[in-house]
Amino acid sequence: MYLRTWDDYEHHSLKLTAHSTSGIRRTALRAASQEALERRVKAIEAAGLGVGWADGDAGIGPTYRFTDPDGHDFELYWESEWYDPPEHLRPSLKNQAQAYPGRGVSVRRLDHVNFLAAATEPNGDFVRDVLGGRVTEQIRLDSGKISAQWLHFATKSYDLVYTEDWTGRNGRLHHIAFAPDTREDILRAADICLDNGVFIETGPHKHAIQQTFFLYVYEPGGNRIELCNPVARLILAPDWRPITWTEAERAKGQAWGLKTIDSFHTHGTPSAD
Amino acid sequence: MYLRTWDDYEHHSLKLTAHSTSGIRRTALRAASQEALERRVKAIEAAGLGVGWADGDAGIGPTYRFTDPDGHDFELYWESEWYDPPEHLRPSLKNQAQAYPGRGVSVRRLDHVNFLAAATEPNGDFVRDVLGGRVTEQIRLDSGKISAQWLHFATKSYDLVYTEDWTGRNGRLHHIAFAPDTREDILRAADICLDNGVFIETGPHKHAIQQTFFLYVYEPGGNRIELCNPVARLILAPDWRPITWTEAERAKGQAWGLKTIDSFHTHGTPSAD
Amino acid sequence: MYLRTWDDYEHHSLKLTAHSTSGIRRTALRAASQEALERRVKAIEAAGLGVGWADGDAGIGPTYRFTDPDGHDFELYWESEWYDPPEHLRPSLKNQAQAYPGRGVSVRRLDHVNFLAAATEPNGDFVRDVLGGRVTEQIRLDSGKISAQWLHFATKSYDLVYTEDWTGRNGRLHHIAFAPDTREDILRAADICLDNGVFIETGPHKHAIQQTFFLYVYEPGGNRIELCNPVARLILAPDWRPITWTEAERAKGQAWGLKTIDSFHTHGTPSAD
Amino acid sequence: MYLRTWDDYEHHSLKLTAHSTSGIRRTALRAASQEALERRVKAIEAAGLGVGWADGDAGIGPTYRFTDPDGHDFELYWESEWYDPPEHLRPSLKNQAQAYPGRGVSVRRLDHVNFLAAATEPNGDFVRDVLGGRVTEQIRLDSGKISAQWLHFATKSYDLVYTEDWTGRNGRLHHIAFAPDTREDILRAADICLDNGVFIETGPHKHAIQQTFFLYVYEPGGNRIELCNPVARLILAPDWRPITWTEAERAKGQAWGLKTIDSFHTHGTPSAD
Repeated sequence: MYLRTWDDYEHHSLKLTAHSTSGIRRTALRAASQEALERRVKAIEAAGLGVGWADGDAGIGPTYRFTDPDGHDFELYWESEWYDPPEHLRPSLKNQAQAYPGRGVSVRRLDHVNFLAAATEPNGDFVRDVLGGRVTEQIRLDSGKISAQWLHFATKSYDLVYTEDWTGRNGRLHHIAFAPDTREDILRAADICLDNGVFIETGPHKHAIQQTFFLYVYEPGGNRIELCNPVARLILAPDWRPITWTEAERAKGQAWGLKTIDSFHTHGTPSAD
Repeated sequence: MYLRTWDDYEHHSLKLTAHSTSGIRRTALRAASQEALERRVKAIEAAGLGVGWADGDAGIGPTYRFTDPDGHDFELYWESEWYDPPEHLRPSLKNQAQAYPGRGVSVRRLDHVNFLAAATEPNGDFVRDVLGGRVTEQIRLDSGKISAQWLHFATKSYDLVYTEDWTGRNGRLHHIAFAPDTREDILRAADICLDNGVFIETGPHKHAIQQTFFLYVYEPGGNRIELCNPVARLILAPDWRPITWTEAERAKGQAWGLKTIDSFHTHGTPSAD
Repeated sequence: MYLRTWDDYEHHSLKLTAHSTSGIRRTALRAASQEALERRVKAIEAAGLGVGWADGDAGIGPTYRFTDPDGHDFELYWESEWYDPPEHLRPSLKNQAQAYPGRGVSVRRLDHVNFLAAATEPNGDFVRDVLGGRVTEQIRLDSGKISAQWLHFATKSYDLVYTEDWTGRNGRLHHIAFAPDTREDILRAADICLDNGVFIETGPHKHAIQQTFFLYVYEPGGNRIELCNPVARLILAPDWRPITWTEAERAKGQAWGLKTIDSFHTHGTPSAD
Repeated sequence: MYLRTWDDYEHHSLKLTAHSTSGIRRTALRAASQEALERRVKAIEAAGLGVGWADGDAGIGPTYRFTDPDGHDFELYWESEWYDPPEHLRPSLKNQAQAYPGRGVSVRRLDHVNFLAAATEPNGDFVRDVLGGRVTEQIRLDSGKISAQWLHFATKSYDLVYTEDWTGRNGRLHHIAFAPDTREDILRAADICLDNGVFIETGPHKHAIQQTFFLYVYEPGGNRIELCNPVARLILAPDWRPITWTEAERAKGQAWGLKTIDSFHTHGTPSAD
C-alpha cells in the first residue's frame, strides 16, 4: 500500500507492507544527481556498508541498497518519475503536486526519520562523512557520550536523527515525522487523534532542540509518528556550528518546560520484547 | 436533507429542500424559555406579522411562524430535543456536541444570517422592538438612510443583518455565515474551495464593520456563503452604543483596504432576473 | 497603578496596589443596568453578605461592596464612563476601544477569575442564586463533593470559577485569566515568557473542562496568570445542562493527555505559609 | 543605522543610510565558503560585471563588489563574525540568535529581494549562470518575453526576483521582504500597520506564484516592503522544473482571486519621476 503526502512530487512518501512486527523496513534517500549517486555509492562501498544494486520501486530508477553502522536498511536512487495526479486530484495551482486533500491532518510532507541506535556517533559520522550530511544539533552527556544527533542535507534543520537505544538493540525506529502546514494544524490534529482513539504520547509542545512544534502519537501498528512544524526556522548559515546540549540543559525538559516523557526513552519499534 | 455543524446541540443547523430557485426559505430562532416564546408571539401578533402555529420540525416543539416587514419567513420555538450522536460520532470530550469531523472546512456553527431588504430600518426596528435584539453597528448614508444594520441577541456581536437590496425586491438573502474555529481555518478553506471549484467572491480579508475575518463563496445553488471568524471579539458592555459608519468611512473599503466587490451589492438570492 | 487591555471600553481592567502579600484584593462586576444593580444589592443584603455602598473608583459610579461566602471581596456597579483614548492610542477602526498595542502578549480582555475556596458549593450557589450566574461545568468527586465549579453570566462559557482550596484557607486566588486573540498568540506568549524569565507553570495545552487553550505563568508577585483562548466556543443553548466530570474522568488529565501539574492544587495567593 | 532580525546570526540584516532618494543601495550575498567566493568572483569578472574588492562592513571580511546586468549594486563576501547578543537580548534557547523581540511585527528574517529591471532575462541568466542560482518560477508573456523570474540558491523557493520595469529604467527596487513566523503574524501585522498609519498597498492574500502569503506596505521613505510567509513550502526536488505561468494564468489574479493591484506594476524606488 502506497501513501503520498500532498506536496510530494514523487510517486509515494511511504510504502506500507504487511509484516509480523512494526518498525521501519527501509529508508530511501534521493541523490541530487546521477553523479552524486555514483559518488555516494563509491563512498558507501569504501565504508564496507554496501549491499548492492536493485531495481527501484515503482517510478524509481536503479537503486543502491546499504545499511548504516547500526544496521538500519537504506537505499539511494536518482531517477524518479514525477507524479502525475489523476484528474480528480489535479491542483488548481500548478506549482503544487496535487490538490490539497482537506481530510484528516492533511500533512504536507514526510519531514524526517529518527532512528534508535545502540551507539549514535558511528551512525552520525557515517551520515556526515559518507552520505554528506551535517550535524546541526546534538546532546553530549556528562560522560562525554553523544546520546543524540540531528543531521541535515539542505536548509531544513534536520532530516535524519540518531538517538541512543537504551535497550542496546540495533536497527530500531524511534519515529517518523510528517509536517503539516502550521502549528494550528497540529493543534487540530490533536483533536482529530483524540476523537479517533489514536494514542497521544506527548505534546503538542515545542522542542528545545531544533525548536520544532510537535505532537507524538502511535499509529495502530505501534510505530511512533511525529507531527511537526518548524515555524519558519531554517539553517541558512553555511558555517553553522553544531549546537551541543548538556545533560543539565536537557534536564530542563522541552522549550516551555514540559518534562520529557519516560516512554520517549523506552518505546521503539519493533518493540523490545 | 439535514445538515449539522459539529458544535450544534440541536438536531440540525440547516435543512436543504429541493426547489426551483435559490434563497433562504425560512429562518428559525429559538426563544430563551417557554415564557419568552409566548411573550414574543404576543408581540409579533401585535405587530401584525404573525402567521400562526405549526408542528415543529424533527426534534423541535410547537413552532410559531411569522414574517419580518420585508417578507422573509421566520419561525420561533422553544422546545428542542438535544442531539444524541450515533456511536461513530461520539466526542471524546463530553462538553461537545459530537466528534470533530476533520473533513473539509469543519465549521463549528451557523453564525448569522444576512438578509436583503427593500428598506432596512423597518426590519431592524422589528428585530429590536419585537424580537428583542439590539443594533450593534449600522451604516448611515449621507442622505440619512440606514443602508445596513447588524443586530445581536447575546454577546456575539451580530446574529441577524439587514442590507439594502438595490433591486428594491423583497425577501431575498444576502448570505448565511458559518464560523470555523480560527482564521487559519478560513485560509485553509480558501485552498479547499480553490481546489474544489467553489467560486470565491471575495476575501479572505477583515471587515471594518464588526472586524470579522471573512471569506465569501457561492454554493453550487448560487447562495452566497460566508465563512467568518470574529477573532475573540464579543460585545460585553450592556450599554454598547451602536457604531454608525458614514458613507465616507465605507468608501475606504474593508479593514485593511480591500475594496468592497461590486457583486456584493448586486448578488442576492433568488437572483434578480 | 491602572492597567487596561486593548479591547476594554471601561477605564481599566486591573488596578495594581502595593501590598505586603500577593492575592486578589477585590473583584468588581458590572450590573447590566441600574435596575439590575439595585435588584442584586437587595439579594446580596438578603443573603447577609453585604458590606455597603462606597464611592466608585475613577470613572465608576456608586459601588456596592460585599463578599462571597468564602470571604473574597467583591463590588458591583452600573455607572461607568467610557474610555476615551489619548490621541496616540486612537484606533483606526472606531468599533475598537483603542489601538492594538503590538507589544508583548497584547491581551484583548480580562477573561475570568478563578477563586480558591474552602468549600466550593456555597460559593457557586451564591453566584448562581444571588448574582444570577449559571453553572456550565463542574467536578464531582466520588465522595459526592463538588470540588470545582465554572459559572457564567452570558455566552462566554465561564466568567467566575471556584476551586477547592486543599489548605482549607479562605479568600485566596487561584488565578486571573487574560484572553489574547488566538492560540498562536498563546504559543508566542510562551516564547515571550521564556525569554523574559517569567515562570511557566504548565501549558500551553487544552483543558478538557471548557476546552480552553491555556498557558499558566506566575507574575513576579507570585499570582498565577492564565492566558486563555476558547477557540470560538460559546454556550448559546438557553437550556444548557451543566457538564459534571467525575474523578475518573479528571484523572485522565487535560484534553490531549497532559497530566495536571501538582502545584495546580497547591499554589494559591496569598501563599499558604 | 543597522537593523537586525531576531533569527539572524550575522551582524545586521539591513543598514539604513540617509539619502536623497529611496531605493536599495546595494545587496550583499554571502558565499558558502572561501573557495565559493573566489570561484564566483572569477565568474563575475569573466562576465565583465566586476567592480572590485572593498573592506567589508562591520563584522564582514573582504568583500567583492559587482553589478547585475541591469545595474543593481551587489557585493559578495564569505568571512562573517557571528552575532553576540548583549546580555538583555540573550535568548533562552541557545539555538537562536537572540531573544524573541515581542514588539511590532517581530520578523524572523530578511527573506528575499525583488528587483525591477528593464529586461528580466539577462539578469535571471546572470544569477543562474554566474551566481549559481536556479529559476523556480517565471512568467512568460504571449509575446514570448519573460516578464518575471524567481530564483533560489537553496531550498527556500526564492531568494532573488526580477520583474520587468514598465518605465524601462534601470537599477530600481520592487520590494524587499521580511518573513515573520506565521500567517497569523501577517494578519496581526496588518492591524499594526493600520493603527500606525503605515500604507497598506495590497493583501493579506496568497500569491498564486510561489504560494506565499503576503502583505505589501510602504515604509515611510516610500520603499515597498513585503511581509511574507511560505506556509512550510520548500523546493526539495533536485530536478525541479521551473514553473512557467502564461499571461492568461496571470490574468486570474492571485491564488484566491484578488486582482493584482495596478501600483504593483508602476511603483518602484527610486520613484520614476
